[in-house]
Amino acid sequence: MSDDATRHREKMEKRKAVQDAEVAAKTVEKGLLLVHTGPGKGKSTAALGLMLRALGRGWRVGMVQFIKGGWDTGERHAVEVFGDRVAWHTLGEGFTWETQDKARDIAACRHAWAVAEGLMADPTIRLLVLDELNIALRYDYLDLDTVVAALQARRPDLHVVVTGRNAKPALIEAADLVTEMGSVKHHFSAGVKAQEGIEF
Amino acid sequence: MSDDATRHREKMEKRKAVQDAEVAAKTVEKGLLLVHTGPGKGKSTAALGLMLRALGRGWRVGMVQFIKGGWDTGERHAVEVFGDRVAWHTLGEGFTWETQDKARDIAACRHAWAVAEGLMADPTIRLLVLDELNIALRYDYLDLDTVVAALQARRPDLHVVVTGRNAKPALIEAADLVTEMGSVKHHFSAGVKAQEGIEF
Repeated sequence: MSDDATRHREKMEKRKAVQDAEVAAKTVEKGLLLVHTGPGKGKSTAALGLMLRALGRGWRVGMVQFIKGGWDTGERHAVEVFGDRVAWHTLGEGFTWETQDKARDIAACRHAWAVAEGLMADPTIRLLVLDELNIALRYDYLDLDTVVAALQARRPDLHVVVTGRNAKPALIEAADLVTEMGSVKHHFSAGVKAQEGIEF
Repeated sequence: MSDDATRHREKMEKRKAVQDAEVAAKTVEKGLLLVHTGPGKGKSTAALGLMLRALGRGWRVGMVQFIKGGWDTGERHAVEVFGDRVAWHTLGEGFTWETQDKARDIAACRHAWAVAEGLMADPTIRLLVLDELNIALRYDYLDLDTVVAALQARRPDLHVVVTGRNAKPALIEAADLVTEMGSVKHHFSAGVKAQEGIEF
Protein backbone atom coordinates (compact mmCIF):
# COMPACT_ATOMS: atom_id res chain seq x y z
CA MET A 1 0.00 0.00 0.00
CA SER A 2 1.36 3.47 -0.88
CA ASP A 3 2.17 6.01 1.84
CA ASP A 4 -0.71 8.16 0.62
CA ALA A 5 -3.17 5.27 0.83
CA THR A 6 -1.90 4.38 4.31
CA ARG A 7 -2.26 7.96 5.52
CA HIS A 8 -5.78 8.10 4.08
CA ARG A 9 -6.72 4.85 5.81
CA GLU A 10 -5.33 6.00 9.17
CA LYS A 11 -7.14 9.32 8.93
CA MET A 12 -10.41 7.59 8.03
CA GLU A 13 -10.01 5.06 10.86
CA LYS A 14 -9.84 7.98 13.31
CA ARG A 15 -12.79 9.66 11.66
CA LYS A 16 -14.82 6.46 11.82
CA ALA A 17 -14.12 6.14 15.56
CA VAL A 18 -15.47 9.67 16.08
CA GLN A 19 -18.53 8.97 13.90
CA ASP A 20 -19.26 5.66 15.61
CA ALA A 21 -19.07 7.30 19.06
CA GLU A 22 -21.47 10.01 17.91
CA VAL A 23 -23.95 7.47 16.56
CA ALA A 24 -23.70 5.36 19.72
CA ALA A 25 -24.48 8.40 21.88
CA LYS A 26 -27.86 8.85 20.16
CA THR A 27 -30.37 6.47 21.66
CA VAL A 28 -33.72 8.27 21.73
CA GLU A 29 -36.47 7.15 19.35
CA LYS A 30 -39.56 9.33 19.09
CA GLY A 31 -42.10 10.76 16.76
CA LEU A 32 -40.60 14.01 15.50
CA LEU A 33 -42.01 17.43 14.79
CA LEU A 34 -40.24 18.59 11.64
CA VAL A 35 -40.51 22.12 10.22
CA HIS A 36 -39.50 23.11 6.67
CA THR A 37 -39.46 26.87 6.37
CA GLY A 38 -37.60 29.67 4.58
CA PRO A 39 -37.99 31.42 1.22
CA GLY A 40 -36.30 28.73 -0.90
CA LYS A 41 -37.74 25.83 -2.86
CA GLY A 42 -38.04 22.33 -1.45
CA LYS A 43 -40.19 22.77 1.66
CA SER A 44 -43.25 20.85 0.47
CA THR A 45 -41.12 18.77 -1.89
CA ALA A 46 -38.94 17.45 0.94
CA ALA A 47 -42.14 16.61 2.85
CA LEU A 48 -43.24 14.58 -0.19
CA GLY A 49 -39.88 12.80 -0.14
CA LEU A 50 -40.37 11.92 3.53
CA MET A 51 -43.80 10.60 2.64
CA LEU A 52 -42.31 8.40 -0.08
CA ARG A 53 -39.65 7.05 2.32
CA ALA A 54 -42.30 6.31 4.98
CA LEU A 55 -44.46 4.52 2.40
CA GLY A 56 -41.41 2.41 1.57
CA ARG A 57 -41.41 1.31 5.21
CA GLY A 58 -44.99 0.16 4.96
CA TRP A 59 -46.42 3.08 6.94
CA ARG A 60 -49.76 4.81 6.43
CA VAL A 61 -49.31 8.54 5.88
CA GLY A 62 -51.48 11.63 5.79
CA MET A 63 -51.35 14.93 3.91
CA VAL A 64 -53.40 18.03 4.64
CA GLN A 65 -52.86 20.97 2.30
CA PHE A 66 -53.95 24.19 4.02
CA ILE A 67 -53.49 26.66 1.18
CA LYS A 68 -53.10 24.74 -2.04
CA GLY A 69 -56.42 24.45 -3.74
CA GLY A 70 -58.08 22.30 -6.32
CA TRP A 71 -55.40 22.49 -8.97
CA ASP A 72 -53.99 19.37 -10.52
CA THR A 73 -50.62 18.20 -9.16
CA GLY A 74 -48.25 15.40 -10.08
CA GLU A 75 -47.80 14.37 -6.46
CA ARG A 76 -51.49 13.75 -6.00
CA HIS A 77 -51.55 11.46 -9.06
CA ALA A 78 -48.38 9.71 -7.92
CA VAL A 79 -49.66 8.69 -4.50
CA GLU A 80 -52.78 7.08 -5.95
CA VAL A 81 -50.65 4.00 -6.60
CA PHE A 82 -50.38 3.52 -2.82
CA GLY A 83 -54.17 3.33 -2.44
CA ASP A 84 -55.61 3.85 1.05
CA ARG A 85 -52.14 3.94 2.60
CA VAL A 86 -52.22 7.67 1.78
CA ALA A 87 -54.91 9.90 3.29
CA TRP A 88 -54.63 12.97 1.05
CA HIS A 89 -56.70 16.10 1.73
CA THR A 90 -56.33 19.18 -0.45
CA LEU A 91 -58.44 21.65 1.53
CA GLY A 92 -57.06 25.07 0.65
CA GLU A 93 -58.87 27.54 -1.53
CA GLY A 94 -55.75 28.85 -3.22
CA PHE A 95 -53.71 31.88 -2.29
CA THR A 96 -55.33 34.80 -0.50
CA TRP A 97 -55.07 36.91 -3.63
CA GLU A 98 -57.01 34.28 -5.53
CA THR A 99 -59.95 33.96 -3.15
CA GLN A 100 -59.99 37.66 -2.17
CA ASP A 101 -62.28 36.55 0.65
CA LYS A 102 -60.75 36.46 4.11
CA ALA A 103 -63.75 34.83 5.81
CA ARG A 104 -63.67 32.00 3.29
CA ASP A 105 -59.89 31.57 3.74
CA ILE A 106 -60.32 31.33 7.51
CA ALA A 107 -63.17 28.83 7.21
CA ALA A 108 -61.08 26.67 4.85
CA CYS A 109 -58.11 26.71 7.27
CA ARG A 110 -60.31 25.80 10.22
CA HIS A 111 -61.81 22.90 8.31
CA ALA A 112 -58.32 21.73 7.28
CA TRP A 113 -57.17 21.92 10.91
CA ALA A 114 -60.14 19.78 12.03
CA VAL A 115 -59.15 17.18 9.42
CA ALA A 116 -55.53 17.34 10.66
CA GLU A 117 -56.70 16.75 14.24
CA GLY A 118 -58.64 13.72 13.05
CA LEU A 119 -55.56 12.29 11.33
CA MET A 120 -53.40 12.95 14.41
CA ALA A 121 -55.90 10.87 16.40
CA ASP A 122 -55.81 8.01 13.86
CA PRO A 123 -53.37 5.41 15.22
CA THR A 124 -52.79 3.91 11.75
CA ILE A 125 -51.11 7.13 10.55
CA ARG A 126 -47.35 7.27 11.29
CA LEU A 127 -46.41 10.39 9.30
CA LEU A 128 -48.56 13.45 8.75
CA VAL A 129 -47.69 16.41 6.51
CA LEU A 130 -49.38 19.73 7.31
CA ASP A 131 -48.56 21.58 4.13
CA GLU A 132 -48.42 25.39 4.31
CA LEU A 133 -49.74 25.36 7.87
CA ASN A 134 -47.18 28.12 8.54
CA ILE A 135 -49.06 30.39 6.13
CA ALA A 136 -52.33 29.83 7.97
CA LEU A 137 -50.58 30.65 11.26
CA ARG A 138 -48.83 33.68 9.83
CA TYR A 139 -52.13 35.27 8.82
CA ASP A 140 -53.66 34.31 12.20
CA TYR A 141 -56.25 32.16 10.44
CA LEU A 142 -55.68 29.59 13.19
CA ASP A 143 -54.86 30.10 16.86
CA LEU A 144 -51.12 29.54 17.32
CA ASP A 145 -51.30 28.30 20.93
CA THR A 146 -53.99 25.75 20.07
CA VAL A 147 -52.03 24.42 17.10
CA VAL A 148 -48.68 24.20 18.93
CA ALA A 149 -50.30 22.51 21.95
CA ALA A 150 -51.97 19.92 19.72
CA LEU A 151 -48.69 19.23 17.88
CA GLN A 152 -46.83 18.85 21.19
CA ALA A 153 -49.52 16.44 22.43
CA ARG A 154 -49.13 14.20 19.36
CA ARG A 155 -48.89 10.44 19.82
CA PRO A 156 -45.32 9.33 20.68
CA ASP A 157 -45.01 7.37 17.42
CA LEU A 158 -46.41 10.05 15.12
CA HIS A 159 -44.06 12.16 12.98
CA VAL A 160 -45.50 15.49 11.84
CA VAL A 161 -44.03 17.71 9.12
CA VAL A 162 -45.10 21.36 8.96
CA THR A 163 -44.20 23.40 5.88
CA GLY A 164 -44.39 27.01 4.79
CA ARG A 165 -42.45 30.24 5.01
CA ASN A 166 -42.14 32.31 8.15
CA ALA A 167 -42.56 29.58 10.75
CA LYS A 168 -43.65 31.12 14.06
CA PRO A 169 -41.02 31.15 16.86
CA ALA A 170 -43.33 29.11 19.14
CA LEU A 171 -43.51 26.37 16.50
CA ILE A 172 -39.72 26.41 16.01
CA GLU A 173 -39.35 26.14 19.79
CA ALA A 174 -41.63 23.08 19.85
CA ALA A 175 -39.96 21.38 16.86
CA ASP A 176 -37.30 18.66 16.88
CA LEU A 177 -35.93 19.56 13.45
CA VAL A 178 -36.08 22.88 11.63
CA THR A 179 -34.66 23.29 8.16
CA GLU A 180 -34.54 26.73 6.54
CA MET A 181 -34.62 26.50 2.77
CA GLY A 182 -32.65 29.44 1.41
CA SER A 183 -32.93 30.62 -2.16
CA VAL A 184 -29.44 31.02 -3.65
CA LYS A 185 -30.64 31.17 -7.24
CA HIS A 186 -34.06 30.77 -8.82
CA HIS A 187 -34.97 30.09 -12.43
CA PHE A 188 -38.15 32.21 -12.10
CA SER A 189 -35.79 35.22 -11.99
CA ALA A 190 -34.50 34.15 -15.40
CA GLY A 191 -38.00 34.14 -16.91
CA VAL A 192 -38.54 30.40 -16.64
CA LYS A 193 -42.15 29.51 -15.92
CA ALA A 194 -43.51 27.01 -13.40
CA GLN A 195 -43.41 23.70 -15.24
CA GLU A 196 -45.48 20.55 -14.91
CA GLY A 197 -43.51 17.75 -13.29
CA ILE A 198 -41.19 20.16 -11.47
CA GLU A 199 -43.31 22.78 -9.71
CA PHE A 200 -46.61 20.87 -9.68
CA MET B 1 -69.88 43.29 2.94
CA SER B 2 -68.07 44.81 5.94
CA ASP B 3 -65.48 47.57 5.49
CA ASP B 4 -62.77 45.18 6.58
CA ALA B 5 -63.81 42.54 4.04
CA THR B 6 -63.97 45.19 1.31
CA ARG B 7 -60.50 46.49 2.14
CA HIS B 8 -59.16 42.93 2.15
CA ARG B 9 -60.73 42.24 -1.25
CA GLU B 10 -59.35 45.45 -2.77
CA LYS B 11 -55.87 44.74 -1.43
CA MET B 12 -55.97 41.18 -2.77
CA GLU B 13 -57.26 42.35 -6.18
CA LYS B 14 -54.16 44.55 -6.46
CA ARG B 15 -51.92 41.74 -5.29
CA LYS B 16 -53.46 39.35 -7.79
CA ALA B 17 -52.79 41.81 -10.62
CA VAL B 18 -49.10 41.94 -9.60
CA GLN B 19 -48.91 38.15 -9.32
CA ASP B 20 -50.62 37.61 -12.66
CA ALA B 21 -48.23 40.01 -14.37
CA GLU B 22 -45.27 38.18 -12.86
CA VAL B 23 -46.55 34.81 -14.00
CA ALA B 24 -47.28 36.13 -17.50
CA ALA B 25 -43.71 37.44 -17.78
CA LYS B 26 -42.31 33.94 -17.37
CA THR B 27 -42.50 32.12 -20.66
CA VAL B 28 -39.39 29.95 -20.91
CA GLU B 29 -39.76 26.17 -20.62
CA LYS B 30 -36.60 24.11 -20.32
CA GLY B 31 -34.99 21.19 -18.60
CA LEU B 32 -33.55 22.59 -15.39
CA LEU B 33 -30.35 21.96 -13.51
CA LEU B 34 -31.35 22.02 -9.84
CA VAL B 35 -28.86 21.96 -6.96
CA HIS B 36 -29.77 21.14 -3.34
CA THR B 37 -26.87 22.00 -1.08
CA GLY B 38 -26.13 23.26 2.44
CA PRO B 39 -25.67 21.61 5.83
CA GLY B 40 -29.38 21.12 6.65
CA LYS B 41 -31.67 18.17 6.11
CA GLY B 42 -33.85 17.79 3.05
CA LYS B 43 -31.41 17.83 0.13
CA SER B 44 -31.85 14.22 -1.00
CA THR B 45 -35.37 14.13 0.43
CA ALA B 46 -36.52 17.05 -1.73
CA ALA B 47 -35.00 15.27 -4.74
CA LEU B 48 -37.13 12.24 -3.85
CA GLY B 49 -40.17 14.50 -3.69
CA LEU B 50 -39.39 15.83 -7.17
CA MET B 51 -39.09 12.25 -8.36
CA LEU B 52 -42.52 11.43 -6.91
CA ARG B 53 -44.05 14.48 -8.59
CA ALA B 54 -42.48 13.58 -11.93
CA LEU B 55 -43.74 10.00 -11.62
CA GLY B 56 -47.21 11.45 -11.06
CA ARG B 57 -46.86 13.11 -14.48
CA GLY B 58 -46.11 9.77 -16.09
CA TRP B 59 -42.40 10.46 -16.58
CA ARG B 60 -39.58 7.95 -16.40
CA VAL B 61 -36.97 9.00 -13.83
CA GLY B 62 -33.46 8.03 -12.86
CA MET B 63 -31.51 7.99 -9.58
CA VAL B 64 -27.77 7.55 -9.19
CA GLN B 65 -26.48 7.51 -5.62
CA PHE B 66 -22.77 8.37 -5.61
CA ILE B 67 -21.95 7.87 -1.93
CA LYS B 68 -24.80 5.96 -0.32
CA GLY B 69 -23.97 2.30 -0.31
CA GLY B 70 -25.79 -0.97 0.00
CA TRP B 71 -27.83 -0.17 3.06
CA ASP B 72 -31.55 -0.67 3.07
CA THR B 73 -33.67 2.45 2.54
CA GLY B 74 -37.39 3.14 2.56
CA GLU B 75 -37.20 5.16 -0.65
CA ARG B 76 -35.76 2.25 -2.59
CA HIS B 77 -38.60 0.00 -1.47
CA ALA B 78 -41.17 2.70 -2.21
CA VAL B 79 -40.21 3.24 -5.84
CA GLU B 80 -40.47 -0.48 -6.62
CA VAL B 81 -44.19 0.08 -7.04
CA PHE B 82 -43.43 2.19 -10.14
CA GLY B 83 -41.59 -0.70 -11.78
CA ASP B 84 -39.30 0.13 -14.71
CA ARG B 85 -40.41 3.78 -14.71
CA VAL B 86 -37.64 4.25 -12.11
CA ALA B 87 -34.02 3.48 -13.01
CA TRP B 88 -32.46 3.32 -9.53
CA HIS B 89 -28.70 2.85 -9.09
CA THR B 90 -27.15 2.77 -5.63
CA LEU B 91 -23.47 2.79 -6.55
CA GLY B 92 -21.67 4.30 -3.58
CA GLU B 93 -19.55 2.31 -1.18
CA GLY B 94 -20.60 4.27 1.90
CA PHE B 95 -18.85 7.23 3.47
CA THR B 96 -15.09 7.66 3.08
CA TRP B 97 -14.58 6.75 6.74
CA GLU B 98 -16.39 3.47 6.15
CA THR B 99 -14.42 2.29 3.14
CA GLN B 100 -11.07 3.77 4.33
CA ASP B 101 -9.90 3.13 0.78
CA LYS B 102 -9.54 6.18 -1.43
CA ALA B 103 -8.81 4.26 -4.64
CA ARG B 104 -11.98 2.23 -4.16
CA ASP B 105 -14.02 5.40 -3.46
CA ILE B 106 -12.70 7.00 -6.64
CA ALA B 107 -13.44 3.90 -8.72
CA ALA B 108 -17.00 3.76 -7.33
CA CYS B 109 -17.58 7.44 -8.19
CA ARG B 110 -16.25 7.01 -11.71
CA HIS B 111 -18.49 4.03 -12.28
CA ALA B 112 -21.48 5.98 -10.93
CA TRP B 113 -20.66 8.88 -13.25
CA ALA B 114 -20.55 6.53 -16.25
CA VAL B 115 -24.02 5.26 -15.30
CA ALA B 116 -25.22 8.86 -14.94
CA GLU B 117 -23.91 9.68 -18.42
CA GLY B 118 -25.81 6.68 -19.78
CA LEU B 119 -29.04 7.88 -18.17
CA MET B 120 -28.52 11.42 -19.48
CA ALA B 121 -28.30 9.94 -22.96
CA ASP B 122 -31.50 7.90 -22.49
CA PRO B 123 -34.33 9.90 -24.12
CA THR B 124 -36.99 8.14 -22.03
CA ILE B 125 -35.64 9.69 -18.80
CA ARG B 126 -37.09 13.14 -18.03
CA LEU B 127 -35.73 13.66 -14.50
CA LEU B 128 -32.40 12.43 -13.18
CA VAL B 129 -31.22 12.71 -9.57
CA LEU B 130 -27.45 12.65 -8.99
CA ASP B 131 -27.45 12.10 -5.26
CA GLU B 132 -24.39 13.30 -3.32
CA LEU B 133 -22.56 14.13 -6.52
CA ASN B 134 -21.35 17.26 -4.70
CA ILE B 135 -19.44 15.06 -2.26
CA ALA B 136 -17.66 13.26 -5.11
CA LEU B 137 -16.75 16.65 -6.60
CA ARG B 138 -15.63 18.08 -3.28
CA TYR B 139 -13.08 15.30 -2.80
CA ASP B 140 -11.97 15.62 -6.43
CA TYR B 141 -13.04 12.04 -7.11
CA LEU B 142 -14.44 13.31 -10.41
CA ASP B 143 -13.20 16.06 -12.68
CA LEU B 144 -15.30 19.17 -12.08
CA ASP B 145 -14.98 20.62 -15.59
CA THR B 146 -16.01 17.34 -17.21
CA VAL B 147 -19.05 16.98 -14.96
CA VAL B 148 -20.22 20.59 -15.35
CA ALA B 149 -19.77 20.45 -19.14
CA ALA B 150 -21.81 17.24 -19.37
CA LEU B 151 -24.58 18.72 -17.20
CA GLN B 152 -24.65 21.88 -19.32
CA ALA B 153 -24.85 19.76 -22.49
CA ARG B 154 -27.90 17.85 -21.18
CA ARG B 155 -30.89 17.30 -23.46
CA PRO B 156 -33.23 20.33 -23.50
CA ASP B 157 -36.07 18.32 -21.94
CA LEU B 158 -34.02 16.67 -19.18
CA HIS B 159 -34.20 17.96 -15.61
CA VAL B 160 -31.20 17.07 -13.44
CA VAL B 161 -31.07 17.40 -9.65
CA VAL B 162 -27.67 17.40 -7.95
CA THR B 163 -27.53 17.02 -4.16
CA GLY B 164 -24.89 17.22 -1.44
CA ARG B 165 -23.16 19.75 0.77
CA ASN B 166 -20.56 22.22 -0.45
CA ALA B 167 -21.68 22.54 -4.06
CA LYS B 168 -18.79 23.84 -6.17
CA PRO B 169 -19.08 27.45 -7.43
CA ALA B 170 -18.84 26.29 -11.06
CA LEU B 171 -21.85 24.02 -10.55
CA ILE B 172 -23.82 26.81 -8.87
CA GLU B 173 -22.93 29.05 -11.80
CA ALA B 174 -24.27 26.45 -14.27
CA ALA B 175 -27.46 25.76 -12.29
CA ASP B 176 -30.93 27.20 -12.85
CA LEU B 177 -32.05 26.69 -9.26
CA VAL B 178 -29.93 26.46 -6.15
CA THR B 179 -31.47 25.87 -2.74
CA GLU B 180 -29.32 26.00 0.38
CA MET B 181 -30.74 23.86 3.16
CA GLY B 182 -29.80 25.48 6.46
CA SER B 183 -29.95 23.65 9.76
CA VAL B 184 -31.82 25.77 12.31
CA LYS B 185 -32.34 22.93 14.78
CA HIS B 186 -31.54 19.24 14.62
CA HIS B 187 -32.85 16.38 16.76
CA PHE B 188 -29.51 14.56 16.54
CA SER B 189 -28.19 17.31 18.87
CA ALA B 190 -30.84 16.24 21.40
CA GLY B 191 -29.66 12.63 21.36
CA VAL B 192 -32.32 11.36 18.95
CA LYS B 193 -31.01 8.63 16.68
CA ALA B 194 -31.51 8.20 12.94
CA GLN B 195 -34.85 6.44 12.63
CA GLU B 196 -36.24 4.13 9.98
CA GLY B 197 -38.91 5.84 7.90
CA ILE B 198 -37.48 9.31 8.58
CA GLU B 199 -33.74 9.24 7.90
CA PHE B 200 -33.65 6.11 5.73
